[in-house]
Parts: sequence; C-alpha cells; structure tokens
Amino acid sequence: MCVPPGDDAAVLTRGGLGEVVTVDALVEGHHFDHRLSAEDVGFKAIAVSVSDLGAMGAQPRWAVLALSLPDPRQHWVEGFAAGFGEACRRWGVSLIGGDTTGTSGPAVISVTMGGTLVGPALQRRGAVAGDTVWVTGTLGLAGAGWRLADPPPEALAALRRPDPPLAFALALARQHLASAAMDLSDGLALDLPKLAARSGVGVEIDPDALPGHPALGDDALLHQTCGGEDYALLFTAPAMNSPAIEALARAYGVRLTAIGEVTPGGPVALRGVPWPSGSFSHFGAVSSC
Amino acid sequence: MCVPPGDDAAVLTRGGLGEVVTVDALVEGHHFDHRLSAEDVGFKAIAVSVSDLGAMGAQPRWAVLALSLPDPRQHWVEGFAAGFGEACRRWGVSLIGGDTTGTSGPAVISVTMGGTLVGPALQRRGAVAGDTVWVTGTLGLAGAGWRLADPPPEALAALRRPDPPLAFALALARQHLASAAMDLSDGLALDLPKLAARSGVGVEIDPDALPGHPALGDDALLHQTCGGEDYALLFTAPAMNSPAIEALARAYGVRLTAIGEVTPGGPVALRGVPWPSGSFSHFGAVSSC
Repeated sequence: MCVPPGDDAAVLTRGGLGEVVTVDALVEGHHFDHRLSAEDVGFKAIAVSVSDLGAMGAQPRWAVLALSLPDPRQHWVEGFAAGFGEACRRWGVSLIGGDTTGTSGPAVISVTMGGTLVGPALQRRGAVAGDTVWVTGTLGLAGAGWRLADPPPEALAALRRPDPPLAFALALARQHLASAAMDLSDGLALDLPKLAARSGVGVEIDPDALPGHPALGDDALLHQTCGGEDYALLFTAPAMNSPAIEALARAYGVRLTAIGEVTPGGPVALRGVPWPSGSFSHFGAVSSC
Repeated sequence: MCVPPGDDAAVLTRGGLGEVVTVDALVEGHHFDHRLSAEDVGFKAIAVSVSDLGAMGAQPRWAVLALSLPDPRQHWVEGFAAGFGEACRRWGVSLIGGDTTGTSGPAVISVTMGGTLVGPALQRRGAVAGDTVWVTGTLGLAGAGWRLADPPPEALAALRRPDPPLAFALALARQHLASAAMDLSDGLALDLPKLAARSGVGVEIDPDALPGHPALGDDALLHQTCGGEDYALLFTAPAMNSPAIEALARAYGVRLTAIGEVTPGGPVALRGVPWPSGSFSHFGAVSSC
C-alpha cells in the first residue's frame, strides 16, 4: 500500500527501532541561485533534511543523493561536495549512495535522509489549548536574504547556511517536553496552520513577541511571518514545562522565544493585526503570502 | 563520514537487521520521453529501484519520491500516480514520503527505496575463475525500443514496463547460490566489466549464447551488449550450483541463460568477435557504446 505522511518525515518501525526517513529536492532557480555558492548549496542540501529529522526527534544517520546537472561543471561539483561533506560531518550523517544524471534544465538536487528516533516521535498533532507556542532562532532573516534586492550580510548568511537546532530538538524529544513540533521551512504563516490543523486547535500569536533582528528593517513582520527558509523549530508545550524548556535552550545556546498560545479552536491569528500579505511569492512556490 | 558505495545499493546494518537503500533519478529527455506514458514513467520509477534491491538480495519495503515538474500537469500526475501505485502493489513497496517542487526544466523524478536483506548481501565482488555467468530475461529489447526509429511492439513494451526478476533474485540470495550479482541497467558491455573489476577476474562471453528475440533484427548483438534498460539480473555462480539455479528459474518462470565463464584475469571479452561499437549514445549518458 502507498501511504503518504503528514509530518516532516515518515516513521518506520522495525525490530523495535524507530526509523525516520525524509526527502527534499532543491531546484536551481526555485530554491537557490547565484546568491548561493556551490558550497552553500551542498551544505543546505543536508541542512534542510537535518531540520526535518530534528523536528521529528530523530538523530540523522545516513543520506543518499540524486544529482541532476545540466553539464559536468567539475568546479561546481567539487564545491558542492565540499559543502555537502562539511554538513555531513557537522551533523553526523553518512552519505551511503547516490545517482548522478544529466539534464537539459536547471540542476535538481534530491536528498533522502534517514535517522533514528531518540524518544517518541515529535508530531504535528498533539498541541492542546493552553499550550505555549515556541520558536527557535530568528524568524525572517533567510527570507529577507532571498527577497531583498540588496540584503544585509546577516540575511544572506542565514539564507546560505541554515542552522537547524538539532541537539536542542533531540533533547526536547528525549525529555518528552513538547506536545507537537515541526520545522519552519515555508514561513510561520504557512507552517503554523498545518500544525494547528493536525492538532485540531487554534493559535493566537503575539506579533510583538516574534524574534527579530535589526537587519529585517521596516518589513520585519512580513519577513517573520512569510519569510520561509528559517529551518527553525516550531513547537508547543504545556506551560508547566516552560522552566525545563528554557533551561535546555540555555544549555544548548539556542535562542528561544514564546510567541503565543494554543486556543481551543478557531483561526491561527496574530493578536490585534491581520496577517501581512504581499504580492511577491515565496521562492516561486507560494502565492498567498 | 561520507562513503560512497560500489554496489547497486548501500547496506546499513542496525540491530542485526540488514537494511539496503538505493536511489535513482529519471530525467525527462534522458531516461524517458513521449514514448512512455505517464503511467509507464510511474511504473518504471519503482521498477528500476526494485531491480537494484533485488540484485542485492533485498526485499523492497518502502520508497520516497521527489518529483520536480515544470508545471502542474494534473492529468500527467494522475497517470504517473496510477503507474507508480501499480508497481508499488506489485512488489510490496509502501510510499512513505515525498516532495514535489516546480522546475523551469524537464521533469526529474527521484526515488529512494529501502529494503531488507533476505540473506547475505549479493555483491559485485565474489566471482571466481570457473564460475558460470548467468543472465535473466531477454537482452537488448528495451534498448531497441529506445533506439530504433520504428521499434517493434515487443521492444516498446520492454522499454515501458521493466520486469526485474525480484522473486527469483531473492530465492537465489536465500539459497546462497550466486557468487556475485548486479542488475543490468546500462547494458552488458558497460555493466559486466564493473562486476569483473570488483571481483578481480576476467570473463569470456559466448556471443551466440546471448538470449535474443526475433524483434532485435540484424543488429541483435549490438542491442544485446549495448542496449541498456534491461533490468535483468546478471550473476555468477559455481558450476556445481547450475542444476539448483536452473530449477529455481523454472519454479519462478524466469528465462535464464548461461552466457559465459569467469576467467582468472584479463579482459571481459566476447569469444571470437570484438565488442560492437556504434556512434550512438546510450540515453545521452554513455558515449563509448
């Protein structure tokens, strides 16, 4: 039978071991362009899947790579391999297989990554009314790096080298502190409603609480909600777990912000203001944000 | 650490279970075109990975799909899903995840498949002098279907619906009958030297013994050796195992042919004739055959 999953990754259970598998494709022109070096693209190809597995509470172990390139571009491939290898070493991933093909179109890079659950799987369902909504890192920086004509260096750095909080996510999973979780890849305005829908709840977000950065400038709220490419961890947890969660964040050096509260139902809303809307699309994939 | 494999798939061992993972990408224009319906492409996307896992002695279990498409093409996607699902059911594969992205270029379909070893892994190394060289099915039909301007129906059918001999391959693996194995995807002239090199042996092939088909016409030997896309099983085995191997082939309804013998060293040669060469390339990927 063919069953698609609803979470960041699929869970296989075999011999009592929880295995998790995720797949992500990066397409030249849609997910990266000249602003990313070959090294950046290689690094990112691993980082986005590490983000998915971490958000499920799984330690990444292995990856396979399908690389479709328009021409040999040896120099580019060497750079890609360097960034890919750097990210593999950083997060303990072994490349165990690959397939390289030609294409007459843009480069397409597909990574499948497998890992092992360190506790019960973190899922998008599980949030209940009264839970606190948390997010790691800084929202909107990578999105600003992609969208702005002349982005500040901090935004470009965030776009080029995503830093998913893997160790923190695994600690959360081990200690059973979160009620629901997912990684933020498409932006809060698109991702949070998915978590809320799977949990059957509403969420009220405090726009003033969203973690920001001076480089976001005047359109901070737009970048924070519609930015995409954050590869941060979004999760909910009972309020009573807050001290333990905050202690973990300090221990792992992770910026952590409580941004709102789960409500019994209704919409995913910003307190006091409408969700920003803009005419631009998110990497060609999203037109509503 | 990042370690590339040399076999058809990579072996992971965890908790005493042998897991095997393989990845293959199909690129529009390189691996398929208008001669294949959307259903054919979906079917083939699974079949090529089933062929890889079978050649390792692994029962396929799960797959993830990365689909990069130039536009929504709902009708095409529905056809693709139908063929993909048909192949999943045929070989007992569960689709457990996917990622769909846009692209400005040709469609790129990447499938990662995982499975479980049913015995010791079949590998390309292990062939020894005196072993018999075996091949399943009919060589060259799919290649003729790709290359000929007006291919016969049998050739087109072979191109569109590969039929890797999974059950037979798994029985071989369970009974430890083969010394080395791989699947034939690029054609005998390209694939057999890989097996010989990994085993550190030579091979002498009897060109008159190669399994043929009337539809191959005058260029039969060229198609049989340089054809590609056979998705047949190529393996070596001690001569004393021949009766058991032939009995298995009968039991599973598989056409099986002894095509030559492993030699202590030297080249991979056709007895009495040179390897055919042609000016055409194999799906844009191979220029020497």
